[in-house]
Amino acid sequence: MRMYDLIMKKRNGGVLSKEEINFIVKGYVEGSIPDYQVSAFLMAVYFKGMNKEETSNLTWAFIHSGDIIDLSPIQGIKVDKHSTGGVGDKISLIVIPLVASLGIPIAKMSGRGLGHTGGTIDKLESIKGFRTQMDIDEFIHNVNTYKMAIVGQTANLTPADKKIYALRDVTATVDSIPLIASSIMSKKIAAGSDAIVLDVKVGSGAFMKNLEDARELAQTMVDIGKSLNRRVVAVITNMDQPLGHEVGNANEVKEAIEVLKNNGAEDEKTVALTIASYMAVLGGAYNNFEEAYMNLERKIETGEALEKFKEFIRIQGGDEEVAENPEKLPEAKYHIEIKAQSEGYVNEINAEMIGNAAMLLGAGRKTKEDQIDYSAGISLVKKIGNKVMTGETIAILHTNKKEIKEAMDLVRDAYKISENQPAKVKYIYDVIM
Amino acid sequence: MRMYDLIMKKRNGGVLSKEEINFIVKGYVEGSIPDYQVSAFLMAVYFKGMNKEETSNLTWAFIHSGDIIDLSPIQGIKVDKHSTGGVGDKISLIVIPLVASLGIPIAKMSGRGLGHTGGTIDKLESIKGFRTQMDIDEFIHNVNTYKMAIVGQTANLTPADKKIYALRDVTATVDSIPLIASSIMSKKIAAGSDAIVLDVKVGSGAFMKNLEDARELAQTMVDIGKSLNRRVVAVITNMDQPLGHEVGNANEVKEAIEVLKNNGAEDEKTVALTIASYMAVLGGAYNNFEEAYMNLERKIETGEALEKFKEFIRIQGGDEEVAENPEKLPEAKYHIEIKAQSEGYVNEINAEMIGNAAMLLGAGRKTKEDQIDYSAGISLVKKIGNKVMTGETIAILHTNKKEIKEAMDLVRDAYKISENQPAKVKYIYDVIM
Repeated sequence: MRMYDLIMKKRNGGVLSKEEINFIVKGYVEGSIPDYQVSAFLMAVYFKGMNKEETSNLTWAFIHSGDIIDLSPIQGIKVDKHSTGGVGDKISLIVIPLVASLGIPIAKMSGRGLGHTGGTIDKLESIKGFRTQMDIDEFIHNVNTYKMAIVGQTANLTPADKKIYALRDVTATVDSIPLIASSIMSKKIAAGSDAIVLDVKVGSGAFMKNLEDARELAQTMVDIGKSLNRRVVAVITNMDQPLGHEVGNANEVKEAIEVLKNNGAEDEKTVALTIASYMAVLGGAYNNFEEAYMNLERKIETGEALEKFKEFIRIQGGDEEVAENPEKLPEAKYHIEIKAQSEGYVNEINAEMIGNAAMLLGAGRKTKEDQIDYSAGISLVKKIGNKVMTGETIAILHTNKKEIKEAMDLVRDAYKISENQPAKVKYIYDVIM
Repeated sequence: MRMYDLIMKKRNGGVLSKEEINFIVKGYVEGSIPDYQVSAFLMAVYFKGMNKEETSNLTWAFIHSGDIIDLSPIQGIKVDKHSTGGVGDKISLIVIPLVASLGIPIAKMSGRGLGHTGGTIDKLESIKGFRTQMDIDEFIHNVNTYKMAIVGQTANLTPADKKIYALRDVTATVDSIPLIASSIMSKKIAAGSDAIVLDVKVGSGAFMKNLEDARELAQTMVDIGKSLNRRVVAVITNMDQPLGHEVGNANEVKEAIEVLKNNGAEDEKTVALTIASYMAVLGGAYNNFEEAYMNLERKIETGEALEKFKEFIRIQGGDEEVAENPEKLPEAKYHIEIKAQSEGYVNEINAEMIGNAAMLLGAGRKTKEDQIDYSAGISLVKKIGNKVMTGETIAILHTNKKEIKEAMDLVRDAYKISENQPAKVKYIYDVIM
């Protein structure tokens, strides 16, 4: 087998066999196939795509390129969730205790990575004492005992995907649906779960800008799951503006607590309950979505979900007091209000610009070496559909930095205010299973 | 400027500016842009193409990446020719003396390269004493005095094209018309000629398999020429079977001599006279093709062309006696006849298979280090349209090797003999100028 022939085959629209895909992935990881051949191949995939079987085989090859976590010592159906990424996305913080409160085991392995804000692990670490390093025995023991645990990813999961992703990132071949889908699904499957709920974001603040692409990505990931014997549901959710009111780390934890106290923003609560409900169904707690949704909503109303969140903090070594007294979370020195420059309705809040502003305030990492400032972030006082008066506060920036003109301009420009009242925002677009 | 953005731009169907193309070509040659980005870019070009202006700018960037030969000390319009490559293509051997006999200067610079047989330089070196190394002063003196000279290419012409071609060759991005056209045209223009006649081959033995592609390539090269102030004519000629009866080195020289003696095969003579006539018109010797053709045919009939060929051999230090006594050319030890296995008409002679057989017999180079056996080759006794009887000789293999089963099988399989008489072969399909 020669890589040249496989590039040619894909370039001409051919379908690669499992052996051929393994040859490419293995050869690239081992170094027998040079990056310039792989990048030409990836560009051919960008143009010619991959069918279901090829995408499944690529995912399989990624999974088997590294460690595969064995979660079989955990009783029950292990359910995981994954978000394709958005701004203000604190859904994991809410659904971990919520779903665990049903007795469904959540064994969450999470990376750090780069981004506008930290990842789930970073957000939780804004809670004093919260530990995300533990050995596999403690991790499994906690999941078996409390039905939930989170750990920073240390295993060598899907190194082939990692190497190929790095190449895609510099050769303009990231946005290919089979490549995105196999990258996400291989990581989730290698992490050991039996069932996965995917939160596929669509909109100005998401990677997928339109519903058609989001549906295709969702369907492709669901198909991969099926082909590799994993139960998968994909929920397509709105990311035309940041989710909820808070963007950052400590302030996102605060907002998650508000949702668990039944005081949360409607969009945040709706998306969290929807994701949690599908997790509950896949985990076997309920037979249908409506039943799961109703019961999960009750878990919030009765305070059980909040209690479970406190337990979660406690078993991870954190200060559970924050759940009752969120002011114990890190607090920034400065709080700068952004005012509306005209009267009208908020028609748009560009999520990407808000994310970039949060990063500038210190909430995220641009390079691996960057330190996150847990207290930095943005409160979106007004959201799409809200009426504002000239001079009224629309957002508050939280930061320890003094030079924040760029962030202020970004937030101001992210808001589009006009006389027209916009249509009501839809939170959930579609569910694919 | 970032290479990433330029890959993305081309991938999305954008048009690159002259500055952007220079940035890529320069960056790759200097090593600031890595090969994996260039190969992804080339694959994007394969799918999205390049418009006239981009192709012209790419050619310009290639030309200016290395030496440019200054032929201004040569009086008159310097006319060159180029063939896109076929089997049994000895047209250059014929047209050099033919066009020079009109007083048009032919300053030919020729590479060696790899192939089924040697290049024009190798073929001429099968003549005892023929020298293809000389300094630029002797070269220019000979062209000014005798109107013809040939020299092996030693200058560093179009190194960017060389480096990019090597990458295309291993990433399945060779067959892109703008890339092929700019590669060819940059070399010809850097070699210093004012006008160029292109022999674009089409058919089973050519790189272009169909007329549509050949026309597009021809038009693209003519457009490049115009944009860079070179007069260019492209003649599209048939390569569904090898040209003439001889494939090899010494035997191709023999056949060229036969054409100059007015005994040549009809296809060989027609193509040679057509190419030479356009060279004559571009060189300013005649106003129209028909006039040029008639006069050049007379040059053959009167023996003037053969005399000019003898002069050509003499000034290059070779033994001009071969023109009268071709048996003085290297002769192989073995001559193996291939017989027809059925009765009928020759319907096909797969030129690529014949070429591969010639290579196996010793006529070509697979690697730079290979030595050419000038005496090795194949005589195609029968050509398309000829009637053959079972057991009749259709081809003769000339070689010094004993193990030639594979070559024999290839030649036998290259011939398709059937009861149906095929349509008469067309030699010239089209002319684009």
